[in-house]
This record gives sequence, structure tokens and C-alpha cells, in this order.
Amino acid sequence: MSDLRALLDAVARGDLSPADAAERLDGRQDLGFATLDLQRARRQDHPEVVYGAGKSGDQIAQLVGALADAGQAALVTRVDPAKADVVRAAHPDIRWHPIARVLHRPAPGPQPAPVGRIAVVCAGTSDLPVAEECAVVAEAWGNRVDRHVDVGVAGLHRILSRVDALRAARVVVVVAGMEGALPSVVGGLVATPVLAVPTSVGYGAAFGGLAALLGMLNSCSAGVGVVNIDNGFGAAVLASRINRTGAP
Amino acid sequence: MSDLRALLDAVARGDLSPADAAERLDGRQDLGFATLDLQRARRQDHPEVVYGAGKSGDQIAQLVGALADAGQAALVTRVDPAKADVVRAAHPDIRWHPIARVLHRPAPGPQPAPVGRIAVVCAGTSDLPVAEECAVVAEAWGNRVDRHVDVGVAGLHRILSRVDALRAARVVVVVAGMEGALPSVVGGLVATPVLAVPTSVGYGAAFGGLAALLGMLNSCSAGVGVVNIDNGFGAAVLASRINRTGAP
Amino acid sequence: MSDLRALLDAVARGDLSPADAAERLDGRQDLGFATLDLQRARRQDHPEVVYGAGKSGDQIAQLVGALADAGQAALVTRVDPAKADVVRAAHPDIRWHPIARVLHRPAPGPQPAPVGRIAVVCAGTSDLPVAEECAVVAEAWGNRVDRHVDVGVAGLHRILSRVDALRAARVVVVVAGMEGALPSVVGGLVATPVLAVPTSVGYGAAFGGLAALLGMLNSCSAGVGVVNIDNGFGAAVLASRINRTGAP
Amino acid sequence: MSDLRALLDAVARGDLSPADAAERLDGRQDLGFATLDLQRARRQDHPEVVYGAGKSGDQIAQLVGALADAGQAALVTRVDPAKADVVRAAHPDIRWHPIARVLHRPAPGPQPAPVGRIAVVCAGTSDLPVAEECAVVAEAWGNRVDRHVDVGVAGLHRILSRVDALRAARVVVVVAGMEGALPSVVGGLVATPVLAVPTSVGYGAAFGGLAALLGMLNSCSAGVGVVNIDNGFGAAVLASRINRTGAP
Amino acid sequence: MSDLRALLDAVARGDLSPADAAERLDGRQDLGFATLDLQRARRQDHPEVVYGAGKSGDQIAQLVGALADAGQAALVTRVDPAKADVVRAAHPDIRWHPIARVLHRPAPGPQPAPVGRIAVVCAGTSDLPVAEECAVVAEAWGNRVDRHVDVGVAGLHRILSRVDALRAARVVVVVAGMEGALPSVVGGLVATPVLAVPTSVGYGAAFGGLAALLGMLNSCSAGVGVVNIDNGFGAAVLASRINRTGAP
Amino acid sequence: MSDLRALLDAVARGDLSPADAAERLDGRQDLGFATLDLQRARRQDHPEVVYGAGKSGDQIAQLVGALADAGQAALVTRVDPAKADVVRAAHPDIRWHPIARVLHRPAPGPQPAPVGRIAVVCAGTSDLPVAEECAVVAEAWGNRVDRHVDVGVAGLHRILSRVDALRAARVVVVVAGMEGALPSVVGGLVATPVLAVPTSVGYGAAFGGLAALLGMLNSCSAGVGVVNIDNGFGAAVLASRINRTGAP
Amino acid sequence: MSDLRALLDAVARGDLSPADAAERLDGRQDLGFATLDLQRARRQDHPEVVYGAGKSGDQIAQLVGALADAGQAALVTRVDPAKADVVRAAHPDIRWHPIARVLHRPAPGPQPAPVGRIAVVCAGTSDLPVAEECAVVAEAWGNRVDRHVDVGVAGLHRILSRVDALRAARVVVVVAGMEGALPSVVGGLVATPVLAVPTSVGYGAAFGGLAALLGMLNSCSAGVGVVNIDNGFGAAVLASRINRTGAP
Amino acid sequence: MSDLRALLDAVARGDLSPADAAERLDGRQDLGFATLDLQRARRQDHPEVVYGAGKSGDQIAQLVGALADAGQAALVTRVDPAKADVVRAAHPDIRWHPIARVLHRPAPGPQPAPVGRIAVVCAGTSDLPVAEECAVVAEAWGNRVDRHVDVGVAGLHRILSRVDALRAARVVVVVAGMEGALPSVVGGLVATPVLAVPTSVGYGAAFGGLAALLGMLNSCSAGVGVVNIDNGFGAAVLASRINRTGAP
Repeated sequence: MSDLRALLDAVARGDLSPADAAERLDGRQDLGFATLDLQRARRQDHPEVVYGAGKSGDQIAQLVGALADAGQAALVTRVDPAKADVVRAAHPDIRWHPIARVLHRPAPGPQPAPVGRIAVVCAGTSDLPVAEECAVVAEAWGNRVDRHVDVGVAGLHRILSRVDALRAARVVVVVAGMEGALPSVVGGLVATPVLAVPTSVGYGAAFGGLAALLGMLNSCSAGVGVVNIDNGFGAAVLASRINRTGAP
Repeated sequence: MSDLRALLDAVARGDLSPADAAERLDGRQDLGFATLDLQRARRQDHPEVVYGAGKSGDQIAQLVGALADAGQAALVTRVDPAKADVVRAAHPDIRWHPIARVLHRPAPGPQPAPVGRIAVVCAGTSDLPVAEECAVVAEAWGNRVDRHVDVGVAGLHRILSRVDALRAARVVVVVAGMEGALPSVVGGLVATPVLAVPTSVGYGAAFGGLAALLGMLNSCSAGVGVVNIDNGFGAAVLASRINRTGAP
Repeated sequence: MSDLRALLDAVARGDLSPADAAERLDGRQDLGFATLDLQRARRQDHPEVVYGAGKSGDQIAQLVGALADAGQAALVTRVDPAKADVVRAAHPDIRWHPIARVLHRPAPGPQPAPVGRIAVVCAGTSDLPVAEECAVVAEAWGNRVDRHVDVGVAGLHRILSRVDALRAARVVVVVAGMEGALPSVVGGLVATPVLAVPTSVGYGAAFGGLAALLGMLNSCSAGVGVVNIDNGFGAAVLASRINRTGAP
Repeated sequence: MSDLRALLDAVARGDLSPADAAERLDGRQDLGFATLDLQRARRQDHPEVVYGAGKSGDQIAQLVGALADAGQAALVTRVDPAKADVVRAAHPDIRWHPIARVLHRPAPGPQPAPVGRIAVVCAGTSDLPVAEECAVVAEAWGNRVDRHVDVGVAGLHRILSRVDALRAARVVVVVAGMEGALPSVVGGLVATPVLAVPTSVGYGAAFGGLAALLGMLNSCSAGVGVVNIDNGFGAAVLASRINRTGAP
Repeated sequence: MSDLRALLDAVARGDLSPADAAERLDGRQDLGFATLDLQRARRQDHPEVVYGAGKSGDQIAQLVGALADAGQAALVTRVDPAKADVVRAAHPDIRWHPIARVLHRPAPGPQPAPVGRIAVVCAGTSDLPVAEECAVVAEAWGNRVDRHVDVGVAGLHRILSRVDALRAARVVVVVAGMEGALPSVVGGLVATPVLAVPTSVGYGAAFGGLAALLGMLNSCSAGVGVVNIDNGFGAAVLASRINRTGAP
Repeated sequence: MSDLRALLDAVARGDLSPADAAERLDGRQDLGFATLDLQRARRQDHPEVVYGAGKSGDQIAQLVGALADAGQAALVTRVDPAKADVVRAAHPDIRWHPIARVLHRPAPGPQPAPVGRIAVVCAGTSDLPVAEECAVVAEAWGNRVDRHVDVGVAGLHRILSRVDALRAARVVVVVAGMEGALPSVVGGLVATPVLAVPTSVGYGAAFGGLAALLGMLNSCSAGVGVVNIDNGFGAAVLASRINRTGAP
Repeated sequence: MSDLRALLDAVARGDLSPADAAERLDGRQDLGFATLDLQRARRQDHPEVVYGAGKSGDQIAQLVGALADAGQAALVTRVDPAKADVVRAAHPDIRWHPIARVLHRPAPGPQPAPVGRIAVVCAGTSDLPVAEECAVVAEAWGNRVDRHVDVGVAGLHRILSRVDALRAARVVVVVAGMEGALPSVVGGLVATPVLAVPTSVGYGAAFGGLAALLGMLNSCSAGVGVVNIDNGFGAAVLASRINRTGAP
Repeated sequence: MSDLRALLDAVARGDLSPADAAERLDGRQDLGFATLDLQRARRQDHPEVVYGAGKSGDQIAQLVGALADAGQAALVTRVDPAKADVVRAAHPDIRWHPIARVLHRPAPGPQPAPVGRIAVVCAGTSDLPVAEECAVVAEAWGNRVDRHVDVGVAGLHRILSRVDALRAARVVVVVAGMEGALPSVVGGLVATPVLAVPTSVGYGAAFGGLAALLGMLNSCSAGVGVVNIDNGFGAAVLASRINRTGAP
């Protein structure tokens, strides 16, 4: 790690004791039920994101408060409406994205202009929550996002009419359930990086998203990168990294 | 069974003894290593088909001879080239379809004109053996067959340029491996019955055709019927039944 | 696509601008929570069907209203009784099929006489909801449907007594859970196309319909087409396409 | 164990020292590459059976010799023809069952008359090796065995014509691959115990016998007992135990 | 079928018309939500058993009434306590077995003395409901049943102390969850037929009973017959058939 | 498609007949056993790549010749040494990469300077063939590639000493078999896009790469994109697209 | 068993009758709904542990009472808060560990000083309940336990800063969900025995802990022992046995 | 890492430059086709072990030579006889263990006396290669090993007669295929740590060792640690670590 190397050099120069060096590496704050890694923003270019699924509304509100105290943005995923109500009562300035199930409050101060362009493509309306999670998180991290919804392969004219828009993006995220065929079609239409998000939409032999996942991993369009089932957040992280790689 | 009912009526009229009735139901010929059901042509509209996979070339040649003696057509699937050589040495009039791995000799006498029109669509050249097995068997049973090869979804213009031809068929069979997306695309383009054949083409998470099979079962284009992995023969049987249902 | 080709010719003749051509291809109406494809009737021979599983009663009622405004039939599947009550309160003329969990209101005007004959065969009474979904949808699309219920293979006389009726159909749909053996038996008794619907009926090593699905895919009766687990709707679509192919 | 209890009583009476008691329990003979349990005949009613799959022809011949020295019958399963030749050269009096892949030489002395009646039913000719393994082992242990071959459900008249014979047996063993539907049909026709043996016959989604195994475990005919895939030997053991329970 | 053969002979003699013969084969009574097969007692030695899982208390009460009207015994499995209360209110003479979740009322008239002896062995107390379902059903059909509970392999002395009792039975049913090792141990201790019932007891990699099922199918003690996960009823049917085969 | 749109505009202007427009879309050359898509270079930024696994050495040599005739680069993956010898005999100027199993001959003319920087990280020496396939393909398409071999997590100092190098890349590809843990560790050390390639290296419960695949899809380091098992080629395609997005 | 051998010797000496010997082996107390094995402490070094998952609060309270009457410690796992309230009302002296979901009351009398040192390492805060179950049980059995929480591989500095502490333990238990990579990293850093506990933390392709389980079984760090998913208790048992093996 | 910390302190004292510190951490020797980690002996208490499966006999011979040059022991696993012949020709002093498929040559100099006692228990003779791999590796690392072969649960007296010996060991390794029941039985008989090694011995539903693996993970005897299928080496590593923890 370059952080480690820098510390090592400081130790070598006598500027830092070995004990202090160890302490420096720990920027985490323990809230009892969770640990916030307040240094992540420096290490990974974006602040800690709170995963709301296993936490109560009160716990999320506390975490949002701690992030505010640290002067950091708050971004919480997988929040159901009841928990969101609790958090918004405590933090009226946080924004609630109901379809994405995301809470977001930017870091204080002027926001940088969004860069690049990420296309988020969604096969069916049932896949929308996953696609929106991806889109809202990507926007929260300063990317410009275009949405293309309900353009599944059963009606090809829908995706064909969007090709120019898709080609204008630096990265295309394709969200689909059932047989997960849309990334293969998109991958053959554009030369930009394509990321695929299988969703658990479907029933029977969809096996909770397994059919879509296997379909995407075996895409006949080479060069499709796949994330976990329903993982709109993970796709946003990777798309944002790619977009920023290419941003002026 | 109406055969059973007819026998029952004959027994009731005293035209047939119960013992003879039982004997009549059995038209099979035992060759030691296999049993030919020579009555199938009458019961199921097409003669017994020999599955060549577990049999030696000599055994297949014997079966072909028995079918000739019974005045029936010979159709043998899953024949590898070495076995085919053995059979063709014994029966020079039988035709060898090397890609389909099928041996075929029509029943003696004039052949009826082919009816209807079955389209066999094949995603990639690696899927060809399965598609050809389907096409050759369907032709052997008197169907007119059109082939569309190498039209996978990674290059959409390929399938789009065939839409009119597909719409002219009474039934479309789509053969694809890897993620098995082609039936979903075809199913959205035509209003005719679509049958899907997953193939074991692929590697890694294709799991021997499982990915394609699941993809086809979960097709977002409603009304796609699926057969077993690599089962070009089964698709031919069903397509032929459908085609003949609608044939003038 | 022939639609596309027609548009292309119109553009070539100067009868249509490229921009208008693009717009024409889009007949969808956005209701906020869903998008109705009002052109599907023209493209696919039958109108858009609403999948009720992920929608509220109010949303379904709205969609039914939009279809009425467009002069189209309304067909909604996977509707539970509570949602059905909401929809029927808003649309008293819609018909509720409680076992099939389907709501249906035909398009206005005189109904065409039903054509062909589809046999829907059901192994056990627990498989009835899936079989009825298939039967009700097929009837809604103008097919004549015969039902054969509780004729599983554990009591063979039940299916044997129906053979003549099955042979009179243009296509036979067989619905079964547990080991899914009934399609193999039916496939050996008739020469018409056989479609198989595995259901999630069973427990333990039935694995939610997987055992029945695998049983049907591996049927020793060649030429059985299989759809997804519990997918009575998909079977109806394919059976209707086959039946109409052969209809006078 | 009653053997243990008998030894315990002998120890209590002082008729046996604890050390001797321990030694008595061990009747095994170590041949270096394998251990023969020569006491099994006394404990389990039938002698040790040699599983030939992982052993060389020479090793099998040695084991057969050791059993001869102990005055016991020799029964070897899963023997391929090359190994069989080696063994038969060394032991010309042993009998080779090529389809069952079994070697058998009865214990010296007069053979008891066979008892009871076990029906072994086989769906297709490809399932024959497994069915024959079952039949030959059952006969080797003194059971009377009736064979019914090539009576799969795709041609129901075949099994229907055997019903009286099946009902005359004390236990029916049904061997089938592919979808494994035959035990369900047989189980509905007889009131005797039914054992089912799935075979690895099939391809694609048969998954090496998994489809047949699941089909049999989920049989809609209650009371079917299932053994491992291709385990004709295991079915013979259980059938023999059942048959002898009921034997006069 | 011998019934069929008898009918055939009657038809041949002119004692029965073909139409009446067909009617005779159908002894089922349609209750709207279910169909009772009142002829099963004659065909299969035991009356129809009602599977309570998918039915309401009222529906079960109706079925119990219909069985009473037909002079038949009532046996209902998979009944939860709330449904049982409803049925018992309507039929105070029916007996409720709470652990087995079974309702039972014998056929009217004197009961035959129980025959044979079935041992039901249960690995842990969590497996008791499945073991009791097996035991209660077996008793309802006139078998004498001995229970051996909480004798899992983690404390071997428990099963060792029961060996004499197990050897006295005509058939031993072993019920176990988790790794399902108990049938292997029992199978090595007795020479009687052993049936194994995997249960869904366990968590994590038990996968709902799959681990126990696989363990039992691969038992190193040859000749163990396996039924579906949690299928105490199926084991009772097979055990009863075996026990009666051997009964004097 | 913008190609389609361009053609459409040409048709609208009368510059192109509809028939010619259709013909233009097809740039494929049929060689009998395979079809070369010579237009792909224009559509997807890189020429057609030949998948060598299912082709003979002679067939590959023919394809390489056809690409030469078209003035295009030749890149063939999954070539075993014997096939490579055949191809090199016919085309002495093609380069053979034995570990990667890749044949490559650049397009004629001066090669552009490589751009960007892709890091290919390989957990163990057994994973090398997959990693080299990725590296060689990426280099063939004009990317600068750095290799880091044998840096698995069982000896953490190995990957820690490479962190600065990894951070200097535009995209990091991590190739690992067994438990597939390395992408999680790398993902936590860099802020660049990370792509993960599971390999089939391992045995037993590795299940042919499934364990590594699942490990990578569930990485606790958010934003890792995964490709199919052993799919070094697919990772190269996606990495190249990402690298070029960000290239000056 | 040495217990058995001791009894055998006593029987040989006439000090014990065979009947008494049998009775001695049974120290279990039947409470109707469960059987307590009060001899386990003597046989296995630790008393019977109550698995709370399938029992009511009242039943647990009864079992705790029976253990008190026998002068034994009470340890109950998988207790939810509502049940814990019931038990604590009846036994105010029992201690409730809410995160571990464990109830514990030591055996009466002075407690022995804890021995050895077990390190329990936990990847994420969501894995805490499983890690605490392990830690609390290990402490209850007299081991000294050190906890290391939230040290997953996505932030390597966290585990690196604990290496000295881990090396000081006699055994290290690593608890992790998702991809389960932490045991591989720890296994490369220490030379002490490492036990791995996969948890069901994760979603989608985590498949309820399967991904973590497979990851740990395929660890590239040799010598990691794995227990069932979420089985903190099992890890505590094995760790305690290892720790005590090495304790002075 | 304490190595890292020691280096860090040396750097702080000025005794070591940061550059040298980095170099020190790398003790690996690159042989082209493989990389030897010659520092592992210092880090992990035992030298690098060569995995022979994917290497040629010549390559193994080279690695053995390099280890000799470094004055280290040579231990090679998964060596087939043909490769072993090649290595032994080059290094006549290396010892070949044919059943274990292991080559071993101790480090030069006097060998330390073996410590502790590891019991290796093997269910059947087919499991011997895995058990011997475990035993030979454990002995190579200085542990005293006792073997108990062919003591599977189908004949319980075999394992019961070994209980005293098992209790005398510090750790018991149990190797079993098929249903993998033996660890559950052993775990209930001893209070020492038990490690379980599933083997791929079996067929059909054994699924290459999966049945044994699941059986061992779900053992009703708490505290059994499991390694990968056929991983005798991994069990030896963990057993050796445990044994040495407790060694005087």
C-alpha cells in the first residue's frame, strides 16, 4: 500500500514511531452496533456507504448523524419506507428515493459538476428498483446518468431506438431478470464497456436470479462484466470507477 | 386407447378371443440386444427411430436390416462416423448426414410431397450438429425445412434480416447454446409457435447446457416450448406434429 | 421485421420521414408504475396481458381502465382475491376466475366463435390453479378448451378412459407436479403435440417443481415441449399459437 | 447386538475371557489390498460380496480364491469383460453374466430351492445392465426372479399386459432412467412392495440419473422405496430381505 | 390389471357391455374441491388417505363425512392444530394425534388384530413428527408398531441397546435428519429390510434435508430403501406392504 | 444502431435502395465450416477473434488465411500445441504464445503505440494459462499490460508489495481459482476498476471453478465485475474497452 | 468404548450383572418433549447443551430447571429474546447474552480459572451473532477468548494490525459470510490451527452461506477446518477441544 | 505480521533500509514453470510442499533438486507412479509411498523424535489413498501416526474395538466416502478434536464426494472440522498444528 509505504518512510526518518504508525491506520468510529470507516473516502475516492438491510431506522439515523458530524456525505441503501420515515424525521434534509430505496444527503459545500455519462438500461418495470439503486448511487458520486427503462428483448424495437444514446455513454449498465438476455443484445450493439446486473425477478426455474446470472456469465457478446444478483450498488461502484477513469 | 377400445368391441362381438387380443397389442421384434416396435408407425404416425448412441455399428446395421424386412423406413440418430461406415457398408442405399450424425433411408415406394414449413434457426456454428439433427429428422418425416444458421443475438442484424422468412413458417425451432437468448428475441418477432433447443455449447458456468436451458425456460417472450439439452430429435418430433396439425 | 420493412419502403417512397418512422414504432402508454404496449395486439395476434403479481389492486384497476379506453380486452393473471375485489369494485363488468386467479373482460363487440380444441390435462387437484390459468387464458383468446382433472398416473384407468377425447384435440397441455410423469404417459397415447407444465406441487426433494421439470425434459415420449414451473399462462400462449396454426 | 449379548453372557458365566470375546468379533482376513469379512454370512444372512470396480483382475481372482478356501460362495459385481477373463482363467468353474457384469460361484454342496418371487421390471433396453445386476444377485441369494424388459411408459400396453405377473410377486423392483416414471405407474397397479432403481441412462438435463432419482423420490404412488443411481445390487439386497421375510 | 382382465372376460361373455365396463372403473366421488377415490380400498388394500396440507378445516371435515357415508375409515395427514379443532368439532369421534399431525377414525365394525411388527427408529426428538406420522399411519392400517426414539449415532450405546428389539421386527423404519447416518448403522446390525426417511431437521448445509437424503442413498450398508424428505407417510405405506407380505 | 440510422437516411435521400441497404449489413464470409464476420472490426473496434477449441488445425489455418486476404489481424484462442503446429506450418509469420494457447498475427502496416496500462494479476502458477490468455489478447489489441504472477492471499506480502504498481493501472484484472479470494483483497487496495476471472483450478468442492465464481460474485469489496470461469479472453475484451475509454 | 470395557470387566468379575450393565449406560431423563443426557458431562468433558431453536420458552425453562436439579451447568443456544424473557422470569440467576442468543448459568461451586487462549475473528458486524455464539460457548466451557471484530479483507490493515494477537492464541476461529475469504488470509499469517465458520450473511449468489462455505473448503491456505454454516457452537466445541489438548 | 513488525523495528532503528526490508520479504526462487517459497519453513513451521498433480516428472525432479540445494526437506503430493519413476531415477534417496502417492526426503541431519499421536481412521479400503496421504504427510512433519483401516459403520464392532486407541490420540482424523457417517460415530466416542475428510469414493448420488461432505458438515456430533473432498494433505496440516499445540 502506498499509505503503508509513506508511513514506512516516515518511520525510517524517525518522524513517526512504530506505535503511532499503527494507530494512524485506524480511522474507524465504533457506534456499538456498527463501525464507521471515516477514512474510506481518502482511500477509495468515495465515503463509506451504509447498508440498511440489517439495521433499524434508529440505528440508521444515528449513523447518518455521525457522518454529518464528520462532515461527510450520507448514502444509505436497502432502506424500506418505514425505516426511511424514521430517518427523515430525524434528518429532514436527507433525500428519499423510494423506488431505489436509497437515502442520500450530499457532503456540505458546493457540489462538483457531474462528469462522464453512465447509461442504466432496465429490461422490465419489475427490475426498476435495482436499476434505480444503481442510478441514484452513481449520481450521488458525481456521475451523469441516463436511464432507459422497459426495453427488454421481447420487443426489440425498444432497445434499437436507443442505440445512439447508449453509444454516447462511457459505460452501459444493463439490469435484467428472467433469462437475462438483454446484456448480450446490448453488448453486440455498442463498443463501450457493458456491466450486467441480474435481478431476482422471475419465478419457477428462475431460481431467484440464478437463470439471469448464468445467462449473463455465458453471454455470447464477449466482454460483459457481471455483479451479484440484485446488486445495483455494486454496479454503480464499478461503473463510477470506469467513468472516472475516462473523465477529463 | 382407441386401439384398445376397438379390440374390446371385437372381443364383445366374439370376433376376437381375450388371449388373441392381448397378443395383438404386441408388435415388437426382439433382436437380442434391442427390441423394435414395428407397430409404432401405426400408433404414432411415424416409424420407430433407432437411437445410435449406445449401439455398435454391427447392431445398427442389423436393426436397419430388420426395418427393411418390415418394409419400414430406417432413421438412426447419434451415429458417429466409424459406426456410419459399418452400416453403409452393409446397406449402401442408406444416406449419411455427417453434421447431423443421422442415417436415413426412406420407406420403399414413392415419397409423399413435403408439407408445411418448419424454420430451424441456429445461433452459432457450434450449435449446427443439434440443428441439423432436428432438420434432417423433420425432413425424413415429410416436412419442408428452412435453415437459418449463425444468426446469434451478438449481431442483431443477422436475425432481423430473416424475420419475413421466419413468419412464413408454421413453427420455428431455435437452437442455441451459451446463454440461450435467441428464442426470446425470435419469440418477440413472430406470432408462430416457437420451440427452443438448448445446446451444451459453452464452457465454465454454462454447466453443460444448464445456462441455456434455464434461459429458455425463463424467456420473457411468452409461449416458448423447451426440450432437453442437445435434443434436436425431440424438437423435430414436436415441430413435425405441430406442422402436420396445420397442414392442408 | 415486416413492419420495419413496410416503414422502410414508406420512407424510401418519401411517404414517411425517418423521424415519424421511429415514432410510429412506439405504441406504448406510460402509466408511471407500468407501461402498456397497446400495439402488441397488432404485432403478436393477442393484446398485452397484465401480470398481476407485483402490482396493487389499484394499479391493476388503472391498467384495466386504460385498456378499456383503448378498446382492448383486459386479461390479468396472478391476481389474489383481495386485489380482485378492488378491481371488480371499479370495473363491475370484468369476470373473476378464482381458481385460475385471472380477471378477464373481452374486447367490446361480438366475440368470434371459438376455434380448434385444446385439451388441458391436470394430474392432481393441487395442480388445478395452474391448469385453470392455462385454460382460462386459452379461452380468453378464442380457443375451445376441454378439461381433464385428477387423472394422475397412480390410477391409470383415469387417463386411459380419456384417450379418445385427447386424440380429438389439436394440442394437449399436461399439468403435473411431484414427479411429472403424466406427460410421458400422454405422449405415448396421442400423436398430437403435447405441452408439459411442471408445477411446484410437492415437498422435500420436489425442490419447488424442479423434480417435475427435469422429469418432463427427460420424457421418454419424444416430442414433449416444456414451459417454466407453474407457467400455465405460457402454455396457453404456445397452445393457442399451435391451435390457430391448424385452425380452418 | 445379540452376538454381543451372547458373548457378554458367556463372559459373565466365565466361559469366555474379555480378551477372547474381543478377538471373536473379528472374522476378517486381510489380503493386503482388501479385507474379507468372512463372518458376514453369519451376521447378515448372505456372504461378503466383492465390489469389482476398483480392483484388478488379479486381485479379484485372489479374493475368489480366498472365498473358496473359506468354503463360501463368490459373488463379484461391476466386473468388466477384461477382468472377467482373468478371473475365469484362474477359476474356470465361476460363471460370468456379461450383461449384469457379475461373476458368481455358489457355495459348495447342494443348493437350496429358490423361494418367493421377485419381479424385476426394466423400462428400456439401455437400463438392462442395472436390472440384470439386480436379477443375478437376487438369484445368487436363492430368490426366484421374473424379468420384464422394455416396458417403459411411452407404450403403456407393454406394462399393462404384465400386471397379473407383477401382482404374483412378493416384491417388484423397477429399473428406469430418463424421467423415471415407471415406478409411479407400477405402484398404482400393484399392492406389493415396490423398489425403484434410477439409472444414469439419458443425457442433458438427466444429469447422470438425477432426474430419474428425483422423479422416483417424488412418486405420486405412495410407498415406493428408492436406492442409489445404478444400484442394482442394493435393490437386490433389499428385495431379497423382503422376499425372505415373507417366504414360507 | 386383473380387474381389467376380469371385466374383459365379463365383456367377452356378454355379461357386461363395453360402456358399463368403462363406468365400473370409476368409483370416484367429486366434492368440488377434491375427488375421493372410494375404490382404492379394493384396488390397493387400504382406503384413500386425505393429504391435509392444502385443504381448509371445513374441507377436511367434509371429506371425513363423505368417507363416513361410504362406510370407510378416515385417515388425514399433515393437519395443523387449528384445522384439527375444526374437524373434531364436526366429528367428535375422530382421534387427533398431535405430534404426528394425523386425524384417524377406523372403519366401523370390529377391528382386526394387528399383525407383524414394524420398528420405527428416530434419531433425535426433532425428528419425532415424521416418525410419529409413520407410526400412526402404520397402526391405522393394522400393523403392530414399536417406537425407538432419540437413539442417534452421536451416542452409540442408545442404538446398541435396542438391537434385539430391532431384529424382532419384520421391517425397520429409520427416521433421521442432519447427516442421516443412523440407517447405515442400523443396516449393519440387522438382517431385516431397512427403510430410511430423511427429515428436514438441520440448518445451513443441511439444505432442507438434502444432506440426509444423499447420506441415506449412499449408505455403505447395502439394501436401504429411501423415501422422500419428511415422508413418514410413504415409509408407512411401504413398511405396511412389506409387513403384510410376511404376515401369517 | 447508428449504422442502421445512417443507412435509413441514405435510403430516405434515395441514395440507397432498400434492397442494397439490406445487403450492406452483411459482411460475413462463409467458409463452409464457419462464418467470418469481416465487418466486426468496424462495428466493435476490434476484428473477429477465432475460437479454436472446436476447430481442426486445418480449419484454423484456412481462417487465418481468409483474414490475411481481408487485410485483417488474426487472433486465435484456445489452440492446443498440435493444432498450433499445423497453423504455423501454413503461416510461418504467425506468433504462438504457448502458455496462453493463443496464435496472433497483427494486421499489416505499422502498429500503433500501446496505450493505457492494464494490470493482470494471477493468484497461482496453475492460473497462468488463463491470465496469459487475457494478457496476450489485451496486448494484441494495443493495450500496455503489466503481469503480477503467483501473488495469492496465502502469502499476503506478495500482493502488498505490488500495490503501487496496481494503482498505476487504469484497470486491474485478477485471475484466481480455488476460493477466489484475491479480487476481494485487491479491490480493497485500489480505487481503479477491478475485473475478476475465476479459474477451474482446484479439486473436490471447487466444482470446476464454481467456488471461485461464487466467491468473486459475493466479494465484500464492492464494484468487482466478474466474467465466466476460465474466460481470460472476455476479461481482456472488457479491460481493453475500459482502458481505451480512459486513454488519451 | 472404555466405559463399555470397564463395564465388561466388572461383568467378568461378577461385580455387575449383564442387566445392570445395560441400565447403567442410560443416564437420560425424559421430559416428555425432550430427553436430557445427564451423563454426557462424564463422557464428553462438557455437559449437555440445549438447542433452543425448536423449543418454547416454557420448555427451555423446564430443561434449565432439570439441569439445576442435577447440579449441572445450563447452556442454551439459539434463543430469541421473547423466549429468553420467559426463561429469565423463571430462573433470574441465568445470564442472557443477547447478541449470541445464548443463555448460560455455570454449574454451582467455584469456577475453574480459564485456560489457553482462543481468538475469535469476525469479518463484518453482520457476522457478530455467529461469532458471539462461538465466543460465549467457549467461555462457558472455561476457555479464555479474545475477540477481533469487523476485520474483513476489504480493508487489509485491520487484520494485519492483529497478527501478533492471533499468533498468541492456541487456536483461531474465523467467522465470515459473503465470499468467506478471511480464513485464507488468516491461515497465511499464523501457524496455529485455524477453524472457519461460514455465515449466511449475504444475498443473491451467496445462496444462504454456500458461497462462503465453498470458499473456506477450497482455501489456498492449507489446513483450515470448516464447520457448518452459522455453526458458531460447533466451532466452539472443536476450538475448546483443541485448546484443552494444549492447555497446561 | 511479527516478521513485518520486526522489520519495521529494524527500519526504525536504522538497521535496515526500507528498500532492503521489501527485498527481505521475498524468499521465492523462480524455476520458470513454478516458484518455490523457500521462506515458508520459517513463516509456517514446515517447508513448502510441492503439489504434483499438474507437473511433469521432470519438473518435479527439478523442484526436488532445488529444495536439496536449499537444504530443505522435499515433500511432493499427488504423484502418479510414472512420474515417481522419473523423480526416483534422478533422486535415488527419495522415498516413494505408492498408496499415498507421496514422495518424501527429509531435510539433511538427524531427525527429531516424533511427538504427540495422531490417529488416522479410514472407513473403507477404497479410501486408503486419501488416508495414507494424510498419514505420510503427518509423519513427514514429525508427528507419530496410528492407522485404523476398514472400520466403517456398516460393521460397528470394528470401530468399537478401537475406542481406547482413539482416545489416546491428541487428534483423530476420519477419512470416509459414500455417506460419510464415520466421523459422527467417532465424534460421539472420543473427547479429542476430530477432523473429517470426505472422499470421492462412491457413485451415483455420491456426486463425487458431495454426499460425504454434506454428511460431515451436518454431523450430529458437535465439533467436527471438515476439509475439502480428498484433501488428505489439508487434514495432515491441521492435525499437525493441533498435535504440536499440545505437544510437550
